[in-house]
Amino acid sequence: MFEAAELNRKVTKAEFDALAPALRVEMVQLQQDLRKAGFPVVVLFAGVDGAGKSESVNLLNEWMDPRWLVTRAYDVPSDEERERPEFWRYWRDLPPDGRFGLFLSAWYSQPLLDRVHGRIGRAKLDARLQRIVQFERTLADDGTVILKFWMHLDKKAQKARLKRLEKDPDHHWKITDRDWKHYKLYDAFIATAERMIMQTSAARFQWQIVEGVDERYRALTVLTTIRDRVREELDRRAAAAKAVKTAGKRRSHVAVTAGNGARSSESILDSLDLTQRVGRNKYAAEIKKLRARLHAAFRKAQAQGVSSVLVFEGWDAAGKGGAIRRVTSALDARGVTVIPVAAPTDEELAHHYLWRFWRHVSRAGRFTIYDRSWYGRVLVERVDNLIPPDAWRRAYREIDEFEAELTGHGTNLVKFWLHIDKDEQERRFLARQSTPFKSWKLTQEDWRNREKWDDYEAAVNEMVERTSTAAAPWTLIEANDKRFARLKIIRTVCESLEEKLK
Amino acid sequence: MFEAAELNRKVTKAEFDALAPALRVEMVQLQQDLRKAGFPVVVLFAGVDGAGKSESVNLLNEWMDPRWLVTRAYDVPSDEERERPEFWRYWRDLPPDGRFGLFLSAWYSQPLLDRVHGRIGRAKLDARLQRIVQFERTLADDGTVILKFWMHLDKKAQKARLKRLEKDPDHHWKITDRDWKHYKLYDAFIATAERMIMQTSAARFQWQIVEGVDERYRALTVLTTIRDRVREELDRRAAAAKAVKTAGKRRSHVAVTAGNGARSSESILDSLDLTQRVGRNKYAAEIKKLRARLHAAFRKAQAQGVSSVLVFEGWDAAGKGGAIRRVTSALDARGVTVIPVAAPTDEELAHHYLWRFWRHVSRAGRFTIYDRSWYGRVLVERVDNLIPPDAWRRAYREIDEFEAELTGHGTNLVKFWLHIDKDEQERRFLARQSTPFKSWKLTQEDWRNREKWDDYEAAVNEMVERTSTAAAPWTLIEANDKRFARLKIIRTVCESLEEKLK
Repeated sequence: MFEAAELNRKVTKAEFDALAPALRVEMVQLQQDLRKAGFPVVVLFAGVDGAGKSESVNLLNEWMDPRWLVTRAYDVPSDEERERPEFWRYWRDLPPDGRFGLFLSAWYSQPLLDRVHGRIGRAKLDARLQRIVQFERTLADDGTVILKFWMHLDKKAQKARLKRLEKDPDHHWKITDRDWKHYKLYDAFIATAERMIMQTSAARFQWQIVEGVDERYRALTVLTTIRDRVREELDRRAAAAKAVKTAGKRRSHVAVTAGNGARSSESILDSLDLTQRVGRNKYAAEIKKLRARLHAAFRKAQAQGVSSVLVFEGWDAAGKGGAIRRVTSALDARGVTVIPVAAPTDEELAHHYLWRFWRHVSRAGRFTIYDRSWYGRVLVERVDNLIPPDAWRRAYREIDEFEAELTGHGTNLVKFWLHIDKDEQERRFLARQSTPFKSWKLTQEDWRNREKWDDYEAAVNEMVERTSTAAAPWTLIEANDKRFARLKIIRTVCESLEEKLK
Repeated sequence: MFEAAELNRKVTKAEFDALAPALRVEMVQLQQDLRKAGFPVVVLFAGVDGAGKSESVNLLNEWMDPRWLVTRAYDVPSDEERERPEFWRYWRDLPPDGRFGLFLSAWYSQPLLDRVHGRIGRAKLDARLQRIVQFERTLADDGTVILKFWMHLDKKAQKARLKRLEKDPDHHWKITDRDWKHYKLYDAFIATAERMIMQTSAARFQWQIVEGVDERYRALTVLTTIRDRVREELDRRAAAAKAVKTAGKRRSHVAVTAGNGARSSESILDSLDLTQRVGRNKYAAEIKKLRARLHAAFRKAQAQGVSSVLVFEGWDAAGKGGAIRRVTSALDARGVTVIPVAAPTDEELAHHYLWRFWRHVSRAGRFTIYDRSWYGRVLVERVDNLIPPDAWRRAYREIDEFEAELTGHGTNLVKFWLHIDKDEQERRFLARQSTPFKSWKLTQEDWRNREKWDDYEAAVNEMVERTSTAAAPWTLIEANDKRFARLKIIRTVCESLEEKLK
């Protein structure tokens, strides 16, 4: 695989100096066009030590406008990072729309080194590479351009480089035992890299292998590759934008049809028995027991570092807020965060829609409770045609992958849909209207949403169908009776959490 | 001090139920008015265990709109938190403009417990309380309303409560050994609390002591206090807004006068010898040595967990970017973050201006390099009259306190002003204009700033005078010669860092 990068290609100083000025102007122009076009570019560098990874990053920092460029390099994960899913730290650092993000020692680094040092087997390596593919696909689907450079040196060149640096009094401090240790693992390293590159080279995020011996050659290769790939995407978008202007209306129409089409005549929600009720006395006795049980499980989870994420979705006025308070009051406030999902901030809007949920992923042993969640993507954003149909269709897979990162990390993920029927909702709306301290909860928006009940019902059914996985199943709550609903919710949280505890 | 909170005051259920509906409406209305007025409210709860701290927070969460309310409670600091100054985690969590933030077990908790358990003496307690006063003053000066509740129970009530809960089969799980241990320390706890309250009760952020025996009494007290204090501030602002509309122009004028007035005839900058030069060969030899020295110090600092923060300020075209690259290329990219300070995001604008710098405070052992910094407050924001004069005058103290948090935590803070003269700047502007790959660096803004050279010079002189402290001195760099400047900068970073290392 790497033979083509072992040809000892060189660029003379005169050649380089002739090309450099124009290329610098192009790179800066590229940044300005990118800002206008408003999509992010992720440039990742991996490869052999000494093949010019950080030199390339330094050059890009020198030639481009640092205000629209972020550079991130990673070490072994910190305690707080280890307490969260592996990709959390990369999600945090993703560049917003219109900017370049340069990544060093990033998501490929740990799997590669873990395999080379024999800490994981081949199957485990493949599984981790698969997750990387998912991660990159999620970003690419959202419009991120991903460029990956493998900076290469053959074994002889690597040895010559280390020897040369060691003899040089000005650079010998750069060479440590670690470098020679890596050199001894060269063959294993290259074999693993080959596997890694093969498995993670989808059409949209090909690896570019760069011969790293000659400083000028590799600089030109990296720079022109970035320039061409980003320019190509800018042109493609400009052309697409023209085409979309006329096609806009047709696309919305497709969304509505698809929504109705996906609806089954007998829906999952229809099968719920909403007549179930719990009397006041039974409720009082039960809730006390359940709260004590939840509190005990919570303490144990804190000690064992098991986190819980509770997702509350449901019809307007289905009782999400009240149910959440019944859960939180059984817990220690220091270990719980409630996140009501409202309009995104501009920092959030400038990223993939999952970014705002990744940023709230908690440390070990905590409860994070979402009052509405990432499912808004396949509910309100779908029903109100806020996004094109392919965006919400894609979201089922993205959500599954996101949740798999959480549950794969050991998080206890519990998802509730609070279901009431249309009559009960009307009763509650009217009651809110006539209770002064509750009337703020009811807006015109709520009445408007109510008119779209059937569309929502179709969306909910499809959501449950597509995202109820073994590791993260939906629990449907019959919520016409608040007492019944609250007991079932707390009981479900207890059972689910206890299962995860030793 | 607490006698007034030991009177066993009670509110009957009938009384409470009569008041509650109107109060709920008022609280929600308060939130809506607060959003429009656009300032944050911090509500902090401290006090005796069982006196209703978390119950009050729960009630506020129940009665108010959770979308405009954040609740934060703290445990012992995590590893990542311990690697940063104490207040970092509170800064991160401050509510943005227009929202309430409820804080439990927050900044008073650790100092109080450390003193009660004898881990710190009285002098150290006082020093920590002093830093809390600074923190709260910084927020209050920026328009944050701070309300602090001390929830109280006398010793007898505390004992009775613990006994009662222990006997109750539904609540006995809430009582742990820790509770009885705390009870034994009751007297020490109260004595320390008294000292704490006395020292941290400035007029603008008085403690409110609340008798906690009766659930309904304490709820009414907390709610009406919040309502009245926030309403008062809303009214005050509405009145002030009217008054300012006519006085707006006069205030800008004051800023300019003050700027000129503060200028000394012989300025600090005038005293620099800008003729100092370094030849090409000497530079090449020197920079190699300095890079190796810096790299060695950096490795040692990583091992010892000593962080560095480098601040680069200077005239446009003084060579900040080039100098920064000479520093970073001697370091390992994984341990360095460069932060070019550009326009703030909306999340940043909705907080105190220091918030955006607090959020970048790094973990232990890293370099954080600012290309422009928090000093923009007393430079461009002052010179361009972007803020009222009292805001930038206040900023000197705020910056000193912020930097004292960093240096007090052991951070190596180095601040550079890169100085060139007006002729040299013109030469560089013209050179940029005629070099295609540099012309993007030069904007109309730069020429406009140049016209305000004298105002900037006055602001720089005052900045250096007011913020050059023993722990965080300014280093003025004679930068007419780039080679001279770069050597001096790296040498200064080396010396300063080596001093902090064991």
